[in-house]
Amino acid sequence: MSAIDNLEVCLRSVGEEEDFQINKNTLHDVFSPQLFRRNAGIAIEKLEQHLSDRSIRGLDLIDPDILLQTVKNLMSEQAGMKISDEDKLKAIINLYINTGIQVHSPGYMGRQFSGVIPLAGVFDLVSSIVNQPSSFYEAAQLPSVVERIMADELNQFIGWPEGQFAMVTTSGGSLANLTAILAARNDKFPQFWSEGVAGLHKKVKPAIAVSEDSHYSVSRAAGIIGIGEDQIIRLPTNAKKQICLDKVQHVLDKAEQSGLKVFCLVASVGTTSMGAFDPIDELAEISREREIWLHVDGAHGASLLVSDQHRLKLKGIEKADSFVLDAHKMLFVPAMCTLLFYKNKQKSYCAFNQEASYVFEKKPDIYTEYDSAEQNFECTKRPLIMNLWVCWMLYGKSLFANKIDHLCHITQSVYQQLLTEHDFETLHSPEINILCFRYFPDGLEPTQIGDFQLMIRNRIRKDGKFFISKVDIDGTTALRVVFMNHEVTLEHFNQLLTEIRRIGLDLLQKVSNSNQSVVTR
Amino acid sequence: MSAIDNLEVCLRSVGEEEDFQINKNTLHDVFSPQLFRRNAGIAIEKLEQHLSDRSIRGLDLIDPDILLQTVKNLMSEQAGMKISDEDKLKAIINLYINTGIQVHSPGYMGRQFSGVIPLAGVFDLVSSIVNQPSSFYEAAQLPSVVERIMADELNQFIGWPEGQFAMVTTSGGSLANLTAILAARNDKFPQFWSEGVAGLHKKVKPAIAVSEDSHYSVSRAAGIIGIGEDQIIRLPTNAKKQICLDKVQHVLDKAEQSGLKVFCLVASVGTTSMGAFDPIDELAEISREREIWLHVDGAHGASLLVSDQHRLKLKGIEKADSFVLDAHKMLFVPAMCTLLFYKNKQKSYCAFNQEASYVFEKKPDIYTEYDSAEQNFECTKRPLIMNLWVCWMLYGKSLFANKIDHLCHITQSVYQQLLTEHDFETLHSPEINILCFRYFPDGLEPTQIGDFQLMIRNRIRKDGKFFISKVDIDGTTALRVVFMNHEVTLEHFNQLLTEIRRIGLDLLQKVSNSNQSVVTR
Repeated sequence: MSAIDNLEVCLRSVGEEEDFQINKNTLHDVFSPQLFRRNAGIAIEKLEQHLSDRSIRGLDLIDPDILLQTVKNLMSEQAGMKISDEDKLKAIINLYINTGIQVHSPGYMGRQFSGVIPLAGVFDLVSSIVNQPSSFYEAAQLPSVVERIMADELNQFIGWPEGQFAMVTTSGGSLANLTAILAARNDKFPQFWSEGVAGLHKKVKPAIAVSEDSHYSVSRAAGIIGIGEDQIIRLPTNAKKQICLDKVQHVLDKAEQSGLKVFCLVASVGTTSMGAFDPIDELAEISREREIWLHVDGAHGASLLVSDQHRLKLKGIEKADSFVLDAHKMLFVPAMCTLLFYKNKQKSYCAFNQEASYVFEKKPDIYTEYDSAEQNFECTKRPLIMNLWVCWMLYGKSLFANKIDHLCHITQSVYQQLLTEHDFETLHSPEINILCFRYFPDGLEPTQIGDFQLMIRNRIRKDGKFFISKVDIDGTTALRVVFMNHEVTLEHFNQLLTEIRRIGLDLLQKVSNSNQSVVTR
Repeated sequence: MSAIDNLEVCLRSVGEEEDFQINKNTLHDVFSPQLFRRNAGIAIEKLEQHLSDRSIRGLDLIDPDILLQTVKNLMSEQAGMKISDEDKLKAIINLYINTGIQVHSPGYMGRQFSGVIPLAGVFDLVSSIVNQPSSFYEAAQLPSVVERIMADELNQFIGWPEGQFAMVTTSGGSLANLTAILAARNDKFPQFWSEGVAGLHKKVKPAIAVSEDSHYSVSRAAGIIGIGEDQIIRLPTNAKKQICLDKVQHVLDKAEQSGLKVFCLVASVGTTSMGAFDPIDELAEISREREIWLHVDGAHGASLLVSDQHRLKLKGIEKADSFVLDAHKMLFVPAMCTLLFYKNKQKSYCAFNQEASYVFEKKPDIYTEYDSAEQNFECTKRPLIMNLWVCWMLYGKSLFANKIDHLCHITQSVYQQLLTEHDFETLHSPEINILCFRYFPDGLEPTQIGDFQLMIRNRIRKDGKFFISKVDIDGTTALRVVFMNHEVTLEHFNQLLTEIRRIGLDLLQKVSNSNQSVVTR
């Protein structure tokens, strides 16, 4: 079904049931518990249907201008008929469901977000209605203590001394990376916070060392905090896109000789492009010797902490000064729920330095000791921890570990399979649930291999049966699968390969017919 | 009922109904649509009860260590009995509801968050299950076009030329302030992003001018982005805590003479402490003359845009280079939903400067034109706009305007009432729904007035009938009410005054008996 057909189905499927119109002028009605129940009932019915649909499907994109017009028509009721509130709500939910990436389908192998644990979604409803912004104990008693509990639960797998480390929840991996790098900056250059650029000796040029393959939020952080993107030192990576240990010392020496003061080294566990794991243990030793803050971006991979099978990939993480874990990636809760860990609790107060009478109590007491506003960027913070904790409490760590183990396992199986296919090339042995590869049939010009992958990805998207992503590795595009859905089997992947071959050979045929370059987007 | 009794009730009230145990080892069961429906049913029943409870109540705080232990007991089932998953979920929801600020009660007059529009809460459930992180059109088609639609809807009240302005959604007012100030920094000092501190001439000291009474996130931003908190220029305020227009030019002249280059002026519409509105129209003229970026922190007050009665308070906001609006404050949706507006669309791309192949497509197309990742800080961003839009679509602007008008009206009534009470002093004529005042009975030593207010606030909190806040104005504590609940009437406020008098006189009696200082927290 094309994207446009799909749109029409969304709008047609609104029912003709008895309606429950509210008096729109009455606040009392809009806020009534009865209306809440009715609307919630509609949402649950639609979502249950959605969760029940395990058909294999991807996602074709709709022309945004057409989608925009569809929504405007729905808003202005241009169809000439009066649409009831309930029907509008149903139409909106249909449209929302059908125009989104189908994360619950076995056709979904494309990105780093998961079909969430349904209980976590349910709990978002609770959090929204009780509305407890959680940077202060007073406004969010339960989330504040639950942050401590989850910190201790997860520290079982890290092993820091009790009470000496810190875990801060914040709104996304980018914000957590920024926060940690700020803490590093303020720890190493204490005058930076108040004096800014003016406080540094002319000769001191602070710099950050990062993997060539780090997430864009890391270099963005350098631009934001006044270090400057030019003062990013790129650490070379090997073929697996891990930081090359034997080149690190040399690069750092060279940076120092050129007048740079490297105060922070950012490693990754689970890079975005290939899921590569940097050698934390050894990098920690180098950082310690040089008095550099080691920050680990584990947005994707730090969740392996909970898996007995895979924890060893994080060897040395307890030596990092800070690390990030996105629970909305590999712990399968809704975006966003990011955990930022500090080895040394005191240093978690370095990131921000502040006073404000209406928020920060002048006299600390038993309550304010649980406030997190001095450690997290947000003033109003959604009680992010609650979704994760309620799932942890009811299902235990085994749910998370089982799903992680399963996803890593299927990725390995798929990799083994690809090794036996002569017309495919894999770019790496997968370290987690991300795998990059290329389709390289006979007859394809080597110079066109990258554009060819991109065309295949776009055709797959258009055909709407599978959803995969693409990535540029060393300047050449590759196909990328991320296994986040535990319903995906090797059989589904084989169906994907069949699709890729069919599309690829078709494209090749067209090229050979037209004898022109295949380069389009 | 004391906080501890309350705790016990939460835990006792779990039922003994038939249970639906899942096989915890099976991913399939945890992700099943049937379990989703059952859990959602439990949540809705609890929340409907909660919304139906309109009794007058505040919130006593529980000792965090006791709450922590309670939660741990619940987790470890120390009571010696096996608690079913359903009963655990019920106990958690009870605990969550009962330990939170009772935003739906008429006793709630304390903070800037509201009992949310229930439909917005319901829609958070939908957003969580469909899980569409929305910085890229591909991953969130509907939220991406809806951002454009809401931008145009709100621009009706601003009046910028179509297509020439920008609205960006982001995770909270602090992040929006940071983003706007970064855009200003990079616009005025284009080399700052890549060169950082090293790129500035020794003589240039960038500075930011802010109201004496601005939100802490603004000076925090100066610390974060490398300007330095010392380079914050404080603009003096009048008795109403608005920036004093007749002092601005002098302060800016003096700053320049001392070698500072003020590149950004941050005004507020609706300060946190007193809800003061700075004179935007005149500040815009001063900023224009001096080529300073004018940013307006309208986290609390910019929502008055939708009110015909109150829009005039924002006169000149269309002349600001950027402004912030927290829809999770005065548009009554769940935290967080922040809107950041730019007068000039091009400048919205100044805040961040970036390349990353796996996220930013090298060849722009009709889809990537709708991506927001280059304008917003987040890579993974919750589809924040959806809650606001669905309420706007179903209820129209009138719901928001009616509630705002009602809240401003009750605040005025309360103020008029206080003017007639000889033992109270008001600190200002309220400009929005925030009012600060002090209880000043005969016999109170003027030197003790601040501590006295604090003790009253704490006793009111402890008694659990009302929830109000406190604020320091010119170094002396005052009581502060924020009317976010449209169920609050003048009658409720009079009951609060009765409480304040009862508690105050009781405290005064104790002091006179003990003849000691009343200063405790």
